[in-house]
Amino acid sequence: MNDKIYRVNMTDRTFQVEEVPTEWAGLGGRALTSTIIGAEVDPECHPLGPNNKLVFAPGLLSGTPASNSGRNSCGTKSPLTGGIKESNVGGTSAQIFAKLGIKALIIEGMPAEDEPFYHLHITKEKVEFIPVPHLQGKDNFEILDIMSESYGKKAAVMSIGRPGEMRMLVANISVKDPKGKLRSHGRGAMGAVMGSKKIKVITVDPEKHKDVHIADPMKLKKANRTFTEALKSDPISGEALPRYGTDVLVNIMNEAGAFPTRNFRSGQCEFAEVLSGERMYETIVERNGDTTHGCHAGCVMQCSQTYNDKEGKEVTSGFEYETIWSFGAHTGIQNLDLIARLDHLMDDLGVDSIETGIAMGVAVDAGLLVYGDGQRALELIRDEMANGTPLGRIIGAGAAEIGRLYGLVRVPVVKNQGITAYEPRAVKGQGVSFATNTMGGDHTTGYAVANNIMHIGGHIDPHTKEGQVELSRQLQIITAAIDSTGMCLFIAFPLSENPDTLSSLIEMISAKLGVELDYSNFEELGIKTLKVEREFNKKAGLTNAHDRLPEFMKYEPLPPHNVVWDFTGEELDALWDFIDNPEKR
Amino acid sequence: MNDKIYRVNMTDRTFQVEEVPTEWAGLGGRALTSTIIGAEVDPECHPLGPNNKLVFAPGLLSGTPASNSGRNSCGTKSPLTGGIKESNVGGTSAQIFAKLGIKALIIEGMPAEDEPFYHLHITKEKVEFIPVPHLQGKDNFEILDIMSESYGKKAAVMSIGRPGEMRMLVANISVKDPKGKLRSHGRGAMGAVMGSKKIKVITVDPEKHKDVHIADPMKLKKANRTFTEALKSDPISGEALPRYGTDVLVNIMNEAGAFPTRNFRSGQCEFAEVLSGERMYETIVERNGDTTHGCHAGCVMQCSQTYNDKEGKEVTSGFEYETIWSFGAHTGIQNLDLIARLDHLMDDLGVDSIETGIAMGVAVDAGLLVYGDGQRALELIRDEMANGTPLGRIIGAGAAEIGRLYGLVRVPVVKNQGITAYEPRAVKGQGVSFATNTMGGDHTTGYAVANNIMHIGGHIDPHTKEGQVELSRQLQIITAAIDSTGMCLFIAFPLSENPDTLSSLIEMISAKLGVELDYSNFEELGIKTLKVEREFNKKAGLTNAHDRLPEFMKYEPLPPHNVVWDFTGEELDALWDFIDNPEKR
Repeated sequence: MNDKIYRVNMTDRTFQVEEVPTEWAGLGGRALTSTIIGAEVDPECHPLGPNNKLVFAPGLLSGTPASNSGRNSCGTKSPLTGGIKESNVGGTSAQIFAKLGIKALIIEGMPAEDEPFYHLHITKEKVEFIPVPHLQGKDNFEILDIMSESYGKKAAVMSIGRPGEMRMLVANISVKDPKGKLRSHGRGAMGAVMGSKKIKVITVDPEKHKDVHIADPMKLKKANRTFTEALKSDPISGEALPRYGTDVLVNIMNEAGAFPTRNFRSGQCEFAEVLSGERMYETIVERNGDTTHGCHAGCVMQCSQTYNDKEGKEVTSGFEYETIWSFGAHTGIQNLDLIARLDHLMDDLGVDSIETGIAMGVAVDAGLLVYGDGQRALELIRDEMANGTPLGRIIGAGAAEIGRLYGLVRVPVVKNQGITAYEPRAVKGQGVSFATNTMGGDHTTGYAVANNIMHIGGHIDPHTKEGQVELSRQLQIITAAIDSTGMCLFIAFPLSENPDTLSSLIEMISAKLGVELDYSNFEELGIKTLKVEREFNKKAGLTNAHDRLPEFMKYEPLPPHNVVWDFTGEELDALWDFIDNPEKR
Repeated sequence: MNDKIYRVNMTDRTFQVEEVPTEWAGLGGRALTSTIIGAEVDPECHPLGPNNKLVFAPGLLSGTPASNSGRNSCGTKSPLTGGIKESNVGGTSAQIFAKLGIKALIIEGMPAEDEPFYHLHITKEKVEFIPVPHLQGKDNFEILDIMSESYGKKAAVMSIGRPGEMRMLVANISVKDPKGKLRSHGRGAMGAVMGSKKIKVITVDPEKHKDVHIADPMKLKKANRTFTEALKSDPISGEALPRYGTDVLVNIMNEAGAFPTRNFRSGQCEFAEVLSGERMYETIVERNGDTTHGCHAGCVMQCSQTYNDKEGKEVTSGFEYETIWSFGAHTGIQNLDLIARLDHLMDDLGVDSIETGIAMGVAVDAGLLVYGDGQRALELIRDEMANGTPLGRIIGAGAAEIGRLYGLVRVPVVKNQGITAYEPRAVKGQGVSFATNTMGGDHTTGYAVANNIMHIGGHIDPHTKEGQVELSRQLQIITAAIDSTGMCLFIAFPLSENPDTLSSLIEMISAKLGVELDYSNFEELGIKTLKVEREFNKKAGLTNAHDRLPEFMKYEPLPPHNVVWDFTGEELDALWDFIDNPEKR
């Protein structure tokens, strides 16, 4: 039986199961969520109003034996950026969706103001709408426990904490991973949209599913062998990430002078070593934590970990470079144990730890805490944000809003979303991606750091402008395609170095769909996705003027290399010529 | 001697006096501030950064004997809307600028972070930069007293209170009026820009000035006689406004079902009578207040007043309809005495009483106070906002930001600026102006209420769409021209009914400049001004998608007439065809 579209209406709590329109058949993940949002959501609608939609779609390869293919995409009009948004996540949801034959879940409408929150339970046959006033005010780990009790440990769980209920702009959607830990549809305030639709939790039945349909299972299996070998033999995806996790980047970025420190006032941090992946690795080993952990079944990189406290008790898991940077170098907290506690707290509350951390560093400029005061950061999140006090609402609105409330100029955001742990002035290719991508200050959409700093897939001097726009464009196109497959983005490292990676990936997609695809089809998938996103954003009111880095980066030289951001608007706008002005290409 | 441009650089506290470029010679007021901002400010700059400018320019007729010509324009890139902004004001500044021969004052640059605030004292010869750390933290009335002591009662004074120092988005620039009371460059956070440039107060020497140059003084005098007669014989500008002030609108709008009540949930308010101009008039008379007061010398309307408390002690002056509406019907406060106290407090602090009031009504939806709790509103402004507490920062950021922090959908703003006291669904011509004008949710830029409700200058049914776009367009053009003359906008009432008004106004401008102008020149002045504003906004990132009313007005019928906002985007966009698509016209 073919996959279906599950469509849920929250205004009257009804659902229907629909055939997949032909033009959506070859899409998955980001390509599908963006296409659906582009087709069905009025770009001018209020993101928290009844006319926005929330769409989940597993990647094209999710649910198949393909390694690292377990990522689920969530799409919406973002209340944070005002544009289209896709955020993908590991965990178990993608594979369970795929095995249940759900090509996409589209949630639309909105309950009346006096309605309680709902729990949606999805099975092969139906969607149940269970009013859950008793779950209101609870956070994620408690929700996980309650759901495990009723639906078993294997059910997919997607939930929001109190910040999501309060429709805060840092709220994410949390997703259970294979070991009962949490992953996040982290950025763009997906959790606020879920909160606006009064959905506290979604569970998906893991049992009554069929096998995922693969047109040529043997071909997929064979290609996956090559693919897996490529991932495992790559020095990044096969060695550095498994060992040190994403936090391996601390020393690399700091050495490059591109590790934003104290709200982007320097590119080097004097206490970087305290935050580094190498130090973290030693600490984890010393405390009998786990240095490897996969965010989804089938992951061969296992870049996640379990971080324990001094007593050997687990503190957090999925402890990533960008979070450690934002509370560490950016906010000045020189204590990895405390940042780990913050990470766990933010998982429990269901907030974007990147946006929250960036907001925290900007909050220092607003006078709300001082650099390095981790205890105060903890209180701001646990006592203020979680309880929705005025101060908590301020932090919970993210960096851009703190800037507006406190009249600050040095606010590291693009399209209202915080820029992450890579200094645009010192990694200009990444700066181009931050400025121009469709999602706001997002580090994943065109990861030029790999090329500029790590010399992966060629090398362009990070301080030069030449070639960076072309690099970023190509990365943005390929990333949009990868984000549509269900693949973890880290496959991009071997993909840029070892041609087997891409050819075997395309082979797997061909095997899944029963068609013969080549590189141009893969690239076309990325281009089509970007096109629908760019067009949506334009209609939503995002223009070239929004494809800009914060102005202060143009006139404030960054130590130690004393580099400024020197791209003109025209140079940046040229990135989009392939869509905006195809005659120029 | 010709008028000059005074240019002040706050980065190094220098100034220069420049000749007026030929192309600016025929401009004044809004036409000039917008032209200068358009020519000299990068539309992509941060409004609170060193590359924004703050420009003051008296109207073309300011300083001449022309009645009602004493308004001064202030222009900038607005931190509130992100677009170009002009806000004009009565008081004494326009006439003193004009008599000193200052065509425009351009303030650029920005002191270093550790610099104190400055007092700028402007004389014929120079601009003095006086560091005033001792004035920091003081509010407007105290500043006025101190300046009067040093510079005499007649010096022009323009200052900011604590919210301006804190760069809050409700901060205005306060201007002394002839009786030592305060008027405001009210909207668009002009005070935040002045605060960002660390200017606490500007004084302008009233003594050492020359007579304003008038090419044909007799011709001006003669035309002014006709003009003044037209103003005085008009039932609005000659009777209703002098007697009841702008608050005369309460009963008119309420009767029309277009008086937005409890955050735009109804068009009628059950306690409108308590707020009405008629009631206010009686109260003022009863308490020996003053029912007439002119905001600037030469005003023949005297629509302002002095409002006393029960003991006959003055509470406030310049007590306007929009403020009374925002705290009254919108926030539910059924007590004019208390609203008068709030008005005085906001004058002292230097905040836009409209934006603050609209924010207060939205704050009810955020759970920060309950409808009608005037005491709490007072505390929120006096204790929280004035002291910059987190809660005060929230209120002080205006309605749009409260909406973003609290995840609200029902937020009555356009381009982040609050919509005032006229329900767009029930006065559709005004709705078109709110949606499309270059300034955000501004009631003055295209006052279709006059036509739709008061049957002035023709009549279009307020509930119908037909003809409203054309009406709004024509009003926006003429208003831009009027705003450039130094004239009070209330001349628009006689101007729409009695042809003498416009012809004598054009005659006066001709006499002033020594040229022969006709209606087409006057209209062209408006069109040129709108064109530079529209172009600036486009480059700043404002698009047609920003020319929209809040979405909830499309699906939420407004009692008592159960009307919705039913303009399509295309219909609204057509308003700008004369600039965007001239081939269509």
